[in-house]
Amino acid sequence: MIDSVVSVLQSASTVYVATHAAPDGDAIGSALGLAWILRSAGKQCTVACSDPAPPSLRFLPGSEAIESRRPEAEDVLVVVDAGDLSRLGDLYVAEAFKGRPLIDIDHHLSNTRFGTLNIIDPQAAAVGEMIYNLAAALNVTLNPVIATCLLTAIVTDTIGFRTSSTTAQTLRVAAALVDAGAPLYEIVQQSFDNRPLPVLRIWGKVLSSFQISDGIAWASVSQDMLKAEGVKEEEIKGLVSLMRGTQGVLVSALLMETPEGDVKVEFRSDGKVNVADIATVLGGGGHRAASGCTLPGPLVEAERRALDEVRRHL
Amino acid sequence: MIDSVVSVLQSASTVYVATHAAPDGDAIGSALGLAWILRSAGKQCTVACSDPAPPSLRFLPGSEAIESRRPEAEDVLVVVDAGDLSRLGDLYVAEAFKGRPLIDIDHHLSNTRFGTLNIIDPQAAAVGEMIYNLAAALNVTLNPVIATCLLTAIVTDTIGFRTSSTTAQTLRVAAALVDAGAPLYEIVQQSFDNRPLPVLRIWGKVLSSFQISDGIAWASVSQDMLKAEGVKEEEIKGLVSLMRGTQGVLVSALLMETPEGDVKVEFRSDGKVNVADIATVLGGGGHRAASGCTLPGPLVEAERRALDEVRRHL
Repeated sequence: MIDSVVSVLQSASTVYVATHAAPDGDAIGSALGLAWILRSAGKQCTVACSDPAPPSLRFLPGSEAIESRRPEAEDVLVVVDAGDLSRLGDLYVAEAFKGRPLIDIDHHLSNTRFGTLNIIDPQAAAVGEMIYNLAAALNVTLNPVIATCLLTAIVTDTIGFRTSSTTAQTLRVAAALVDAGAPLYEIVQQSFDNRPLPVLRIWGKVLSSFQISDGIAWASVSQDMLKAEGVKEEEIKGLVSLMRGTQGVLVSALLMETPEGDVKVEFRSDGKVNVADIATVLGGGGHRAASGCTLPGPLVEAERRALDEVRRHL
Repeated sequence: MIDSVVSVLQSASTVYVATHAAPDGDAIGSALGLAWILRSAGKQCTVACSDPAPPSLRFLPGSEAIESRRPEAEDVLVVVDAGDLSRLGDLYVAEAFKGRPLIDIDHHLSNTRFGTLNIIDPQAAAVGEMIYNLAAALNVTLNPVIATCLLTAIVTDTIGFRTSSTTAQTLRVAAALVDAGAPLYEIVQQSFDNRPLPVLRIWGKVLSSFQISDGIAWASVSQDMLKAEGVKEEEIKGLVSLMRGTQGVLVSALLMETPEGDVKVEFRSDGKVNVADIATVLGGGGHRAASGCTLPGPLVEAERRALDEVRRHL
């Protein structure tokens, strides 16, 4: 399959690379990394996402030029890190994605193989690891810009090599990217340090008070609490991993009220419980050890629904 | 130098491996890793430390057999991860360490070269990385037991590849250790997850209230606060890295009152400020980005001294 993808990309002049809405480090890093690889190979390349890159990823070269437009006359379309086309949010309408090769590069087990060509590797810790292999297949030599994007994808999606998906190959790819000029320490600082003080204040409040029962750790964070510190809900979601790391916890759930009154829910497990299943039942998705969904409010009702579903899966 | 060390070790029948008091993951992991390597090479080997392995490291094979005795009739003595012999605590008296080769294996820049043979590599992210090289030089094939000890040394000393000392070589060694059977994810869980709830409650209180001024983040934790949750001071020190990761923070300091009324202080920096210098002035030591010392109480007086010293270095 990778050979077909290589020959389709090699014969293209213009490529449109899209990734999922509410993008994370693997989405942005993989899309930008692939774009820089294709530009190295002489292609014109546009990166698209329905939402801009979050502040913590704006150090990535090219992040400022991400567009929110649909495909136009590009020869080839590529979608990275999306289990299905609905994950593209506003970018996707069937009409705009027709009439040319659509390459689907992803590591979600649940990927629907929506492309005309699909490279799906659920063993890959991050799509960034897959794009690294594609660079080699395309005979593109890595440079520091490409390496920085791809290492950011890997570091963020593995929470710094801490997920059960991290393999010896993940570490070897990371080493090769550091050799190619990716600044690991700066990437780590951008990804995990550099937290605004108000975010840590909310972490403090949640850690002082979150609940544990029957192996489930959970907390609900209201808009009032977020507004009091001037923090957006997506800024605090790292907390859910810390809660999961508490002794005796199998699954953690962090519920965050949005300004619109919906409730974003993040689930984490130690990899034994499959939280992708839990999120899928609730209309979301993700991986075995990390998943999420959005539920209607009010917060207390969303908490009840989320916890009921977790309990059903334990 | 490594050739001389190899030939001294090869001609020994019995080896005594010691590491520093209040041992961390690199101390225990490197000492145990080296012991299992030497046993693989047919040597009898004792691992010694003045303090037992902390609970989070008791999953390491051999950790239960660590002795607190001084050298006896062993042919060769090895000291790992100690900048000078005083770091051995009660293990060290000059008399007991005389009359045979003393091999000093360390990565502290401040190492005093106290051995008859010294392998010092301040570029190594962990002593575990150096012991990995020694295994190769000794022609010992890695097995899962050796690999687990050495990967734990590397993962803990780099806080999971997050320190500025982490290099491409660190990642390559880690990959080789995973290939040899080290369970990276279990090591990460033992090292960073699996925190008792009372520890996270104290994290919560500190994160809700720690202070920042002039690029310094600090907090003081009293015995009363620790006793109220039933937590020992060394259990909460990971907090100091989280505080350092706050936007605008150059140096963090966490002061923890001991049951004896002394104050343990941990310093972290982003690598630009050298906190080893700060700790050294205060009678402690460490690395450029991570150091510590113990000051006399009361807590408020120790806080004043520590902060004065940090300010002098900014």
